[in-house]
Amino acid sequence: MLRMSTLFLRTLREDPADAEVASHKLLVRAGYIRRAAPGIYTWLPLGLKVLAKVENIVREEMDAAGGQEVHFPALLPREPYEATNRWTEYGPNLFRLADRKGADYLLAPTHEEMFTLLVKDLYSSYKDLPLTIYQIQTKYRDEARPRAGLLRGREFIMKDSYSFDVTDEGLEASYQNQRQAYVKIFSRLGLEYVIVQAQSGAMGGSKSEEFLSPTEVGEDTFVRSPGGYAANVEAVTTPVPAAIDWSDAPAAHVEDTPNTPTIASLVDVANSAHPRADREWTAADTLKNVVLAVTTPEGDRSLLVVGLPGNREADMTRLEAALSPLTVEPATEDDFKPYPQLVKGYIGPGVLGPQARPEGIARGDEGDTAIPYLLDPRVVPGTRWITGANEPGRHVFELTAGRDFEGDGVIEGAEVRAGDEAPDGSGPLELARGVEIGHIFQLGRKYAAALDLKVLDVNGKQQVVTMGSYGIGVTRAVALLAENNHDELGLRWPIQVAPFHVHVVATGKDDSVFEAAERFAKELEAQGIEVLYDDRPKVSPGVKFKDAELLGAPYILVVGRGLETGTAELKTRATGAALELPVADVVARTVAAVRAALPA
Amino acid sequence: MLRMSTLFLRTLREDPADAEVASHKLLVRAGYIRRAAPGIYTWLPLGLKVLAKVENIVREEMDAAGGQEVHFPALLPREPYEATNRWTEYGPNLFRLADRKGADYLLAPTHEEMFTLLVKDLYSSYKDLPLTIYQIQTKYRDEARPRAGLLRGREFIMKDSYSFDVTDEGLEASYQNQRQAYVKIFSRLGLEYVIVQAQSGAMGGSKSEEFLSPTEVGEDTFVRSPGGYAANVEAVTTPVPAAIDWSDAPAAHVEDTPNTPTIASLVDVANSAHPRADREWTAADTLKNVVLAVTTPEGDRSLLVVGLPGNREADMTRLEAALSPLTVEPATEDDFKPYPQLVKGYIGPGVLGPQARPEGIARGDEGDTAIPYLLDPRVVPGTRWITGANEPGRHVFELTAGRDFEGDGVIEGAEVRAGDEAPDGSGPLELARGVEIGHIFQLGRKYAAALDLKVLDVNGKQQVVTMGSYGIGVTRAVALLAENNHDELGLRWPIQVAPFHVHVVATGKDDSVFEAAERFAKELEAQGIEVLYDDRPKVSPGVKFKDAELLGAPYILVVGRGLETGTAELKTRATGAALELPVADVVARTVAAVRAALPA
Repeated sequence: MLRMSTLFLRTLREDPADAEVASHKLLVRAGYIRRAAPGIYTWLPLGLKVLAKVENIVREEMDAAGGQEVHFPALLPREPYEATNRWTEYGPNLFRLADRKGADYLLAPTHEEMFTLLVKDLYSSYKDLPLTIYQIQTKYRDEARPRAGLLRGREFIMKDSYSFDVTDEGLEASYQNQRQAYVKIFSRLGLEYVIVQAQSGAMGGSKSEEFLSPTEVGEDTFVRSPGGYAANVEAVTTPVPAAIDWSDAPAAHVEDTPNTPTIASLVDVANSAHPRADREWTAADTLKNVVLAVTTPEGDRSLLVVGLPGNREADMTRLEAALSPLTVEPATEDDFKPYPQLVKGYIGPGVLGPQARPEGIARGDEGDTAIPYLLDPRVVPGTRWITGANEPGRHVFELTAGRDFEGDGVIEGAEVRAGDEAPDGSGPLELARGVEIGHIFQLGRKYAAALDLKVLDVNGKQQVVTMGSYGIGVTRAVALLAENNHDELGLRWPIQVAPFHVHVVATGKDDSVFEAAERFAKELEAQGIEVLYDDRPKVSPGVKFKDAELLGAPYILVVGRGLETGTAELKTRATGAALELPVADVVARTVAAVRAALPA
Repeated sequence: MLRMSTLFLRTLREDPADAEVASHKLLVRAGYIRRAAPGIYTWLPLGLKVLAKVENIVREEMDAAGGQEVHFPALLPREPYEATNRWTEYGPNLFRLADRKGADYLLAPTHEEMFTLLVKDLYSSYKDLPLTIYQIQTKYRDEARPRAGLLRGREFIMKDSYSFDVTDEGLEASYQNQRQAYVKIFSRLGLEYVIVQAQSGAMGGSKSEEFLSPTEVGEDTFVRSPGGYAANVEAVTTPVPAAIDWSDAPAAHVEDTPNTPTIASLVDVANSAHPRADREWTAADTLKNVVLAVTTPEGDRSLLVVGLPGNREADMTRLEAALSPLTVEPATEDDFKPYPQLVKGYIGPGVLGPQARPEGIARGDEGDTAIPYLLDPRVVPGTRWITGANEPGRHVFELTAGRDFEGDGVIEGAEVRAGDEAPDGSGPLELARGVEIGHIFQLGRKYAAALDLKVLDVNGKQQVVTMGSYGIGVTRAVALLAENNHDELGLRWPIQVAPFHVHVVATGKDDSVFEAAERFAKELEAQGIEVLYDDRPKVSPGVKFKDAELLGAPYILVVGRGLETGTAELKTRATGAALELPVADVVARTVAAVRAALPA
């Protein structure tokens, strides 16, 4: 039995200075975790109990789904990650170090390479597959901005599993099997989730879905349609309009548009100086050319221009996802210097993309000094635009895509807005925020090919294995459980992950109170109920209640003045409901309440 | 139930090339672990099961002893380790790295600093103490020579606990409490141990003991006396002889001793050219001056000479322990170059220590160019020696300690030999080899003082807390259990740590055999017995038996030809004993055997 008098715990009345979100504040204040360094936390006794319960649910469902548990080192040699180029692609997110002999190591952010090599080491035939192996293990990521306590840490615990199959159909089955296990896990944890289509990003592979837990404090934005479409914002694709016949379109013409460096000022001047007959010009008639600086994992920086309708902002998250593993930021003054042809506020396709390329020179050829130019999917052939004329104070009107200009390619880089049509036609999108709690990938053959994992197939031929990878943020799940289950007084743990079931509070000074409380606590424990007993002799009832509410056990059993009339009080933390129980019934009724609440 | 047909396992018939000791060979061959990098291992499913059982025994006894479990990060900031100077003192054994902002971090080899700071953070009064907190956690040490698989790894799991007390008596009680828990843990694990006095080394503190598991493959040497003295070789102290009156001693005299660079050649020439009347000269009459290069954690290298009787070798392990945190190696040619006064093979006190110091110059003063000179405890005042005269081919005889020369201090650097007298007079020492499986320290106030951990005492005065630290090598314990429990066929796990209790082997081709075996396996499992069922249809009985012996379950249940006469065979792996059981009794008798073997 845990006793408050000896439990290694100090609750705090004040929020920690660096905490912004409720889960972070409360987990620290209630003595579950403690910061050791930015994004790096120590687990105190109560926190460790919650963590163990979450881990256990994950483990049970992985085992039930046929996963076999293994455990890899966190400290790994460079070579396997070099073979897949992730040593470089991870960029500054990877903790790198050298050992005493100068050999390069990393602290693994995820273990695709090592799992691939292990299976290669042990297995050689299709008969050995399918196989799903997993670990619950400490991972490292040198986040630029660790935040929100456990929600985005630099040392954290993940469950990562990996499936190995010979055929695409096998991969699909293994993927669906893990997906189903994830549904069970998050349901058992009591974590609300939305499964959304996702980008695979640096992980590579063909298909991926995220389990997002909807919450205001989430860093991820996702969309949903009434017809059931769901995707994270990076994965949303834009419905492409049909091309327009341009045979009757007027010729492009350059006009003076003085002092129009912004879309708003351009629309104003267009309507006043160059009005159109049928309707007003709007921002949607303009083509905005956004100059970006992109950097490769090797550190090479260059420019890229994205052309998108003037009524949409560029979305850096979507751009970065589309351009992964490049990093993206707005171009700086220094970036512009080598390009006098870029006239800020008046940039147009004339100096960008294929049309800026000398005759007979293909993209990337020597002599091609043009900046790559990628277009929003809405800029289909035949669409007509007002856009920069590459001279100060001048724009070109009726510039027609396909006829007057082209891009080097298409990019999904414009913001997604509420009300946009879902790509599958299932209705208008709504936007929400969430935290990624799971991510499942069909990696395909990328890792197996890079590391030469092959098995003999039924016909005795060597086949590259196809893989899936499946992650759950275990420490993050603890944070989200706290985030989703609290009120202004403190935490309110779901019983299946609570550090203990019943918080027995002895109030008053009489020995008889403490004797009764201790007896209840012992009898509850004898029946398998997990108890924290607040046995502190000289602490006021007010402080004890505050602590109990902060710590967040599902049930609080108050033993005090009521004893005089033969009762104790059982409170349900989540609802605040209180129940007077006759002393004789206290244990049985409390046990019954806990057992009824606990999942079967 | 584990099934061989799907278990992620490949047993190997060949020993891995890099393995020297049986535990390493067998744990790899039987598919328990797999090397990921030098001294860094992956745990496969069966290995992880053994590890979990060992961890669980450790956890139960820690909890029973009143310890509270917490969990610290492995990646830690430099500052706390800087405050205790261990950032530097750990030298090349510490994995150091910088994060993306250039801040220094380390992978913790042990967590004294962090535990101290955590208690400082939470506690402030004597009423909060005593406290013992612990973790079971992954640790890192960049060993110069990782070896023997899990026995000396670079990433490994330790249980480390820390006690906090106000008084010395409190520390002693906490220490004894942990010591008793260790006795229980190693007894439950079935690991033989010897508790020996130890040096505290880099850890600091006043008292420490090691739990050594005696084994031929151990790197540690320890001594035992018939009277119960036990110490690791670093901690053995030399009984100091009484000083000898030198008033009647003859004067020292330098003699020609051509071609005597070794002790053996010197003794020969001494006996032939300068014989003594009463007896032959022996190596014990000579004083050997060993020139060492010592390096500080900061990397400063300098010379040191140790004078010891010529019949004893210098023991680098004892020297290094005595000089910690300096590292020690024999001086090289380059080291000798700045010191023409050191004539190799003929070095004597004349150019060393105080007698080599200019008049009026104290050690360490400016102008003191002399090399520090430390003497073996046997070189007491009045002892007379043949030693180098600092000229080629010449030695000085009757050089008398205290009269003719002194050292700058005393050092325990000579080898300990079987038959040496125990320092407590409890008889002659015997030497044995072992592996450290536990180490308990009375740290005292070193860490608390360095990190300012104080609490208010009963009188309201601030007191520096006194601490203990207590470690168990958890992964190392797994290796030792394998090392101590194997034969030429494979592993023989003690049942309390075995990955499963019964290995059911179906031999033959008839469906009836597999049906019976599967039924036994299921019925055993229904009774709580952990089973691995070898259900592979096309594998020969010979291969299955070899695998079963290699994997090392305590019981092997062979289901095959015996079915025709209504029997199956239950083998006890450790003894090789086999028992024919009637089919009807198989499950009950096997359950009974397992339950009888399992500790209560």
